[in-house]
Amino acid sequence: MDSSNRRRFVKNVGGIAIGAVAGSGVTRLLSSDEAPLAIPALPWPYVDLDPIAVAERAYLGYSNGGCMYGAFEGIIGELRTKLGAPFDTFPTTMMKYGGGGVAGWGSLCGALNGVAAAIYLLKDSKTGNDLISEIFNWYGVEKLPNYRPKTPKFEIATTISESQLCHVSVTKWANHTGFKTGSPERAERCAWLTASVAKYTTELLNKQLAGTYQRAHQTPAKVTLCLQCHGPSGTVANVHITGGQSNCTSCHHRHWAGGVEF
Amino acid sequence: MDSSNRRRFVKNVGGIAIGAVAGSGVTRLLSSDEAPLAIPALPWPYVDLDPIAVAERAYLGYSNGGCMYGAFEGIIGELRTKLGAPFDTFPTTMMKYGGGGVAGWGSLCGALNGVAAAIYLLKDSKTGNDLISEIFNWYGVEKLPNYRPKTPKFEIATTISESQLCHVSVTKWANHTGFKTGSPERAERCAWLTASVAKYTTELLNKQLAGTYQRAHQTPAKVTLCLQCHGPSGTVANVHITGGQSNCTSCHHRHWAGGVEF
Repeated sequence: MDSSNRRRFVKNVGGIAIGAVAGSGVTRLLSSDEAPLAIPALPWPYVDLDPIAVAERAYLGYSNGGCMYGAFEGIIGELRTKLGAPFDTFPTTMMKYGGGGVAGWGSLCGALNGVAAAIYLLKDSKTGNDLISEIFNWYGVEKLPNYRPKTPKFEIATTISESQLCHVSVTKWANHTGFKTGSPERAERCAWLTASVAKYTTELLNKQLAGTYQRAHQTPAKVTLCLQCHGPSGTVANVHITGGQSNCTSCHHRHWAGGVEF
Repeated sequence: MDSSNRRRFVKNVGGIAIGAVAGSGVTRLLSSDEAPLAIPALPWPYVDLDPIAVAERAYLGYSNGGCMYGAFEGIIGELRTKLGAPFDTFPTTMMKYGGGGVAGWGSLCGALNGVAAAIYLLKDSKTGNDLISEIFNWYGVEKLPNYRPKTPKFEIATTISESQLCHVSVTKWANHTGFKTGSPERAERCAWLTASVAKYTTELLNKQLAGTYQRAHQTPAKVTLCLQCHGPSGTVANVHITGGQSNCTSCHHRHWAGGVEF
């Protein structure tokens, strides 16, 4: 295939195979050999999904690649099945990196990392950030996991994490149930949690598609109180949190704010 | 274009435009209309990159899309410039989601989230997890940012975060320097940090390509001591951290372990 043929073929990729689905056109870049190549413009299309199908796919995905992969693949995999391109061009398995709070580091819950990544494929940043904040706030106050898979390995107790971090979320559950973090019950809990987060995200995406979405969970007042001084526009302004938070006193014990000791 | 033509065209995508670069072949899926579609198999190819070029691209990327996007685009953008496909098929701007610890939530540092995502495009999970742990440990003990861009907006002081979290990392710097988190100096600090993390990651990837990579940063002994009991295989086993951690006592004050009060 000479270069002029390759260029013609590549134009076909943008015009027909990918652009036709993305609808809103494609972004063109010059590759190293100067042939124009096509990336479907973001956001990619969303169609109404069955939250149960997403949850089951996320639950299965957890077994195949952990929490971040499971949550991402739950949503994006369902869109791939329904729409094909452009979702079939995405190397979904890369999302395994977020397992256990990224490579087992216990930082951000991988289910949250996964749905946040998926949301930014489907929404502009303003809409995406609002959805992410709704989900993160919900995660902090909800008794989770709240989705029971159709064929579970165990029954799983629920806890409220008051945090979006893997380490805090898992430790609260382990302390409550007595199960060790290396146990199959803990893994099953995280599989249910992955399904729960993917399901809630899908419900919100469906509502937004239908025009019925409303923000249901806000940053708790006790956090807003702290951020009045410590947030970016406060007098102290030493905390770089603009999206939200569930509980400052998980780490900051015996702290005074507004004349009140927490 | 009828379906048989489309099928033939799509085969060309796998065989020539993408498969020829990926080298190791492509993964074939069935889309909703049953035409075979091609995703380049992971890991994608890595070639030696100039760490300074990556750092400058990451620094610029921070201005265009925040810390996670900047770090990811620093590495993947350089590979796209050098190799074209398959990197030109990736919707890089989705990585904006991780800015400010994901939508401004202050969780995982977006620069770390970005390089971790990039690494999983380029490495298998075992190799990737080792690289991520090396980078995360380095981030916890290094005076950062340690890369000064060629045309900086301000000069930036360094701090040691002892944490991989955006909130902790920024607050330590803000407390040290007195700059507010909403200030342009704080944004510049995070732009330098994004460049620093992308640069260090590239240096490691280059060493690994050359066969000279060696793990330089391990989990600190004071953390290993805590995890002896609290880690997944300990007697308490209520902490789900398998990758590492920099400092437990940032949050867990006045805690006893092994007869020592921290």
